[in-house]
Amino acid sequence: MGKPQDFSPLDLANGRYGRNELTEVPDFNSTLEVLLGHRSVRAFVPERLAEGTLELLIAAGQSAPSSSNLQVWSVLAVEDPLRRARLSQLAGNQVHVAQAPLVLVFLADLARVSTLAQQQGETISGPDYLDTYLMAVIDAALAAQNVVTAAESLGLGSVYIGALRNKPEEVAAELGLPPKVFPVFGLVIGQPDPLRPASVKPRLSQRAVLHREQYSVEQQDAAVADYDAVITAFQRSQGLPQQPWSQQVVSRLRGPEALNGRDRLLEAISNLGFTLN
Amino acid sequence: MGKPQDFSPLDLANGRYGRNELTEVPDFNSTLEVLLGHRSVRAFVPERLAEGTLELLIAAGQSAPSSSNLQVWSVLAVEDPLRRARLSQLAGNQVHVAQAPLVLVFLADLARVSTLAQQQGETISGPDYLDTYLMAVIDAALAAQNVVTAAESLGLGSVYIGALRNKPEEVAAELGLPPKVFPVFGLVIGQPDPLRPASVKPRLSQRAVLHREQYSVEQQDAAVADYDAVITAFQRSQGLPQQPWSQQVVSRLRGPEALNGRDRLLEAISNLGFTLN
Repeated sequence: MGKPQDFSPLDLANGRYGRNELTEVPDFNSTLEVLLGHRSVRAFVPERLAEGTLELLIAAGQSAPSSSNLQVWSVLAVEDPLRRARLSQLAGNQVHVAQAPLVLVFLADLARVSTLAQQQGETISGPDYLDTYLMAVIDAALAAQNVVTAAESLGLGSVYIGALRNKPEEVAAELGLPPKVFPVFGLVIGQPDPLRPASVKPRLSQRAVLHREQYSVEQQDAAVADYDAVITAFQRSQGLPQQPWSQQVVSRLRGPEALNGRDRLLEAISNLGFTLN
Repeated sequence: MGKPQDFSPLDLANGRYGRNELTEVPDFNSTLEVLLGHRSVRAFVPERLAEGTLELLIAAGQSAPSSSNLQVWSVLAVEDPLRRARLSQLAGNQVHVAQAPLVLVFLADLARVSTLAQQQGETISGPDYLDTYLMAVIDAALAAQNVVTAAESLGLGSVYIGALRNKPEEVAAELGLPPKVFPVFGLVIGQPDPLRPASVKPRLSQRAVLHREQYSVEQQDAAVADYDAVITAFQRSQGLPQQPWSQQVVSRLRGPEALNGRDRLLEAISNLGFTLN
């Protein structure tokens, strides 16, 4: 995972941007070191996590805020190698899904509250609104990001698998999901392979992302042009094919043919029992 | 913020559940202490954040994973007291929105990539799919949760303001948002008022939330019954009105009248320039 402790806090913060972005770091601690040093890991050694680690990671996840404390999310831990191999296939053959010892699937879970209403003899329509679906997705995302941070603090690596949304119904069938439970994304966790270390990927300048008081487009063009240069330099350093970021994102969002099945998500979630009023 | 260092790691983890949930904590560090010790803070002193702190928090936020590195999110920092007061009103008169020195509004931002496509003379339809909207919401949520963790590591407190979705168009107008930019939620940040300390809110048992290999409903009923007892004990200890959680969540999701305007989110995001194919 590299040795962030070799760098000053300011170096570490600016490493996130591949350029001199910040001029000062007013305060620092080991949690900020974990957060700023994040890299997505796609090469793992097969060793299982130590006993009790999964439960500790989930406790960190459950410590994230939950909208109105509804806790409309669940998480499914997959360790079975055959099931991981099938999930890997469903996620566009991402080899690390099969290779790492643990795949967590984060679930937007409106089944739990629907069951409770039924048990209480109540008819409720709240779960049938887009905002409620969104709450469930956001609850799951906040919890997942806490798990990522907890895992990295323990020296573990992880990577999100958004491609589980390529084939949501197949994933739901594989995982035995009841109606109104949606697989938001996967999260692969394991010990990073020390022979194939991952790098910190630079991000857009704060001039593009951080707005003050009102939304501003003024500095976006210059910030994107600078970032295109940073990203192509990063690609070169990694031996990757070079393409400016501004072209990558347009290609990725060109149209349904570039979405790998995710253009039919609305239909898929309807098939999974959701209504989005 | 209490003194988590007075407790053992196992105490701290079990404090999250208000019961003996875990039997061991195999490894521990100060980042886990921050994560497990989270509490939502709704009482702040008015002092502004130290110079450079906002930029450091945003760097932590941008360090969160972003789907395909599309970075389809932005964040808007509101410090102007009058604007915070107006946002407070729009969010159901939550007084801490006006009281704390900083309100971050996290934005699902499909405007940036749409502008890039336009500048390149490309017509793209990717932004018009539910999955792309979801990516933007998730990107924003992952970044926001990193900001929460970073802030807490620095001794700051925070609370999410989902109620910004009660009136999305009014919030968008207040913040000058262009089309295809959606305010996902607010995040209030400041120094916690030491005279009104917040408590750790217990969560559902892992028996309800964590599933192994396939989704399981077997233990949910018992876990919810246990949790109802934990939550009413917590409410009693806080001097709050007592209502079992299983009834709270059903009330909160009874129907449109309980959603405070969020039943019209689909219409609102259409008004904000989004298409959800």
